[in-house]
Amino acid sequence: MGNHQYSAVILGVGPERGLGATLAKQFACKGLHVFIAGRNEEKLNIVADNISANGGKVTTVIADAIKEYDVNHLFEVIKLHKTPLHIAAYNVDSNIPSSLLEMETETFTHLWQQNCLGAFLFAKEAIACMKPNQQGSLFFTGATASLRAKPPFTAFSSAKSALRALAQGLAREFSPEGIHVVHTIIDGVINGDRAEQQFPEYFNSKGQDGLLKLEAIAETYWSIHCQHPSAWTHELDLRPFKEPF
Amino acid sequence: MGNHQYSAVILGVGPERGLGATLAKQFACKGLHVFIAGRNEEKLNIVADNISANGGKVTTVIADAIKEYDVNHLFEVIKLHKTPLHIAAYNVDSNIPSSLLEMETETFTHLWQQNCLGAFLFAKEAIACMKPNQQGSLFFTGATASLRAKPPFTAFSSAKSALRALAQGLAREFSPEGIHVVHTIIDGVINGDRAEQQFPEYFNSKGQDGLLKLEAIAETYWSIHCQHPSAWTHELDLRPFKEPF
Amino acid sequence: MGNHQYSAVILGVGPERGLGATLAKQFACKGLHVFIAGRNEEKLNIVADNISANGGKVTTVIADAIKEYDVNHLFEVIKLHKTPLHIAAYNVDSNIPSSLLEMETETFTHLWQQNCLGAFLFAKEAIACMKPNQQGSLFFTGATASLRAKPPFTAFSSAKSALRALAQGLAREFSPEGIHVVHTIIDGVINGDRAEQQFPEYFNSKGQDGLLKLEAIAETYWSIHCQHPSAWTHELDLRPFKEPF
Amino acid sequence: MGNHQYSAVILGVGPERGLGATLAKQFACKGLHVFIAGRNEEKLNIVADNISANGGKVTTVIADAIKEYDVNHLFEVIKLHKTPLHIAAYNVDSNIPSSLLEMETETFTHLWQQNCLGAFLFAKEAIACMKPNQQGSLFFTGATASLRAKPPFTAFSSAKSALRALAQGLAREFSPEGIHVVHTIIDGVINGDRAEQQFPEYFNSKGQDGLLKLEAIAETYWSIHCQHPSAWTHELDLRPFKEPF
Repeated sequence: MGNHQYSAVILGVGPERGLGATLAKQFACKGLHVFIAGRNEEKLNIVADNISANGGKVTTVIADAIKEYDVNHLFEVIKLHKTPLHIAAYNVDSNIPSSLLEMETETFTHLWQQNCLGAFLFAKEAIACMKPNQQGSLFFTGATASLRAKPPFTAFSSAKSALRALAQGLAREFSPEGIHVVHTIIDGVINGDRAEQQFPEYFNSKGQDGLLKLEAIAETYWSIHCQHPSAWTHELDLRPFKEPF
Repeated sequence: MGNHQYSAVILGVGPERGLGATLAKQFACKGLHVFIAGRNEEKLNIVADNISANGGKVTTVIADAIKEYDVNHLFEVIKLHKTPLHIAAYNVDSNIPSSLLEMETETFTHLWQQNCLGAFLFAKEAIACMKPNQQGSLFFTGATASLRAKPPFTAFSSAKSALRALAQGLAREFSPEGIHVVHTIIDGVINGDRAEQQFPEYFNSKGQDGLLKLEAIAETYWSIHCQHPSAWTHELDLRPFKEPF
Repeated sequence: MGNHQYSAVILGVGPERGLGATLAKQFACKGLHVFIAGRNEEKLNIVADNISANGGKVTTVIADAIKEYDVNHLFEVIKLHKTPLHIAAYNVDSNIPSSLLEMETETFTHLWQQNCLGAFLFAKEAIACMKPNQQGSLFFTGATASLRAKPPFTAFSSAKSALRALAQGLAREFSPEGIHVVHTIIDGVINGDRAEQQFPEYFNSKGQDGLLKLEAIAETYWSIHCQHPSAWTHELDLRPFKEPF
Repeated sequence: MGNHQYSAVILGVGPERGLGATLAKQFACKGLHVFIAGRNEEKLNIVADNISANGGKVTTVIADAIKEYDVNHLFEVIKLHKTPLHIAAYNVDSNIPSSLLEMETETFTHLWQQNCLGAFLFAKEAIACMKPNQQGSLFFTGATASLRAKPPFTAFSSAKSALRALAQGLAREFSPEGIHVVHTIIDGVINGDRAEQQFPEYFNSKGQDGLLKLEAIAETYWSIHCQHPSAWTHELDLRPFKEPF
């Protein structure tokens, strides 16, 4: 594990069986020091304990992605640590289905803040860290809704479309400076705690073959991170083989 | 002019030679009572005087598109008037070019509020007015940046992409109830006051053939409004014939 | 009807209640001399008689769109007539659903020839006619499948995607020379003879509100043709208000 | 190298420093028996010798991708060999820039045949081989032009768009049966013999950082092949970090 001189940060780490936690484990397992951030201290600690128990190096930072102060503080912790930041993954994702007519302004705004504004705050700090070294991968997690707006997910889709354009603009601006900006389109339901709890019936209707395995997603993130700069991927979809699309 | 029993509302009416004002003139000219709204009373009055002088019916309402109170008040005025609302056009458009690293959070947020949040507030009210009659056209004005994010317009593109998804979701949700939701992609520079003042050199470099004529845009909005419900257009581009794309 | 000094050509005119025939009637009604072409002489004559009976000017030309000789001959007839060509619409459309594994090479090729190769042959001739006058509208009729490939329509989608790219490239190349190239995306079932005969059950399941009216489509084609060159539309969708999308 | 029980086929193997040859070397290096096919026997032999010299297993088959007989024969050779086919890559790519007006029908047709028809023939055979085992990866190589048609590459773009739709339809039809269909979008110039010979000035203007490394592309193809079926990528772009897009 000779990579401890490098670090990764994941903002949006929640339940043990979630994408944030799985990315953290994956990157720790590859030898990076991982900074994991989220709103829930207890959940962060569970993930951190698991990583430590497997010999990984991890630091937890409590942070609400939509608060500029929190995001800045997260990166101050990272900078103090002095290991070059190689991966930054924004993994906050918020979805509230509703008819547009019944959606409160506050909810509409909140979805945008979590899916897009937080990504903006995170990206600014991550790129500022990475630019001096002219390297680093910056991941944003999108969804089917990033490409198509279908009710009752219009507000979510609006926010995810905003995120996708942000990622695309960042790629165009910072790729030439060595920052690999990646936007993934998760097309389907992740086999994790969140979907299982939020939409148990839908979750179960998918069956094992119809759900995205967390480790499989993390594996692809790692492959994309390892791409040679002469052939970088900016956008790719990830979908269970049985998922209709 | 036997259409005075119908009305149209345009939110985002500014300079005399701007798209909001031109749409207002066009709809008034077709016989609709037009409600024109914007932040600047003086500008609204100039447009209103011009419409009245040409025999049109017009009401001005001072409103900031991103303030829920203002948007709701606008529609209260409209509802008091009791003429069925046939057209609602959201024409607020705000663009501040910048490297993402140098963009303030406030600016990033403000661009989203003006290009997308205001459209959400406006759409909710307009659809609530139109639904009981099962008819009405709801226009959103997009841009090239709605489809592609290029620096230094990343923040603008993010906001316009959010708007586009909003419009698409609204179309899917409310078309079957008789609301015609339209998203136009203005690909190029409008031959109006704003571009001339903001980017005089770029504006002049385009030449006459490279600029979109205001009246030509308004003409197409009217044609699309007049479409039979069996063949509605949801999205279309508008571009000067000389514009490279 | 002072437009007889201008002409229009539609390639792909079949049944009386079809899009080709309806476009021909529409353009004739606006005063253009229409050249209508297709493989079936009898059908052409029925359409022509109807146009003549309504005071329109019409010429029939038997032509198979995928035969270069036929397409060239069609334009020789047009050139002999000496009225400047203002509209050219390629309206050939061929769709054979099948699993890809069971599709014959001949069928796959034929779908491409009818949906795309014929359009290429037609476009070359039409543009050659229009260029000297620096004006003219060139229409291609696409479908939902132009944007998404879904089995059992993969071969159709492949051909329509090829057509869409052709239209886009033509627009980029010839718009600056005054040729208005338009690609329409018909998203739904046309209320005409073809769909009624080919898929009677599907056709009937749509109900009146779920089918595109031929005259409504033709109306939009005409509006787009009439656009001022400072604000041309290259692509637009057309869809019944009740159609899910 | 315990993988010799599996095989891969690449159709479109030409120069030693080309994508076809590099994919073949990569797959052979991972232990698969590779079938390499193309029109030029001499080139195939050079690639095969190189693979053999490195301990790989390889079979050459002379085949013109657009001839059904040749493609069928290629797969008969593969079937005789009895090792399950795990990867099939269609790598034929043909591009002839031209104004549409000056392009011969034969050239337009030929571009489609090489970029799309050959892929259809190849896919049918490859899927028929893979279906009984419910596994296998099927790769199609696309280009920037698969997404946007720009002159003088309109014909190429039309053909590549047709290929993209074919790939998408195949993915929708056969993913549920275990076939992983992948469409890559190569956005930029490959650092290989072909571009260097065809467009030497353009090639050189790109500089080392502006060209796609062959091995880097092959590395990503392999990663995508190795994805777990619960999180398959159907489409991804590959682009040098310095490439404007």
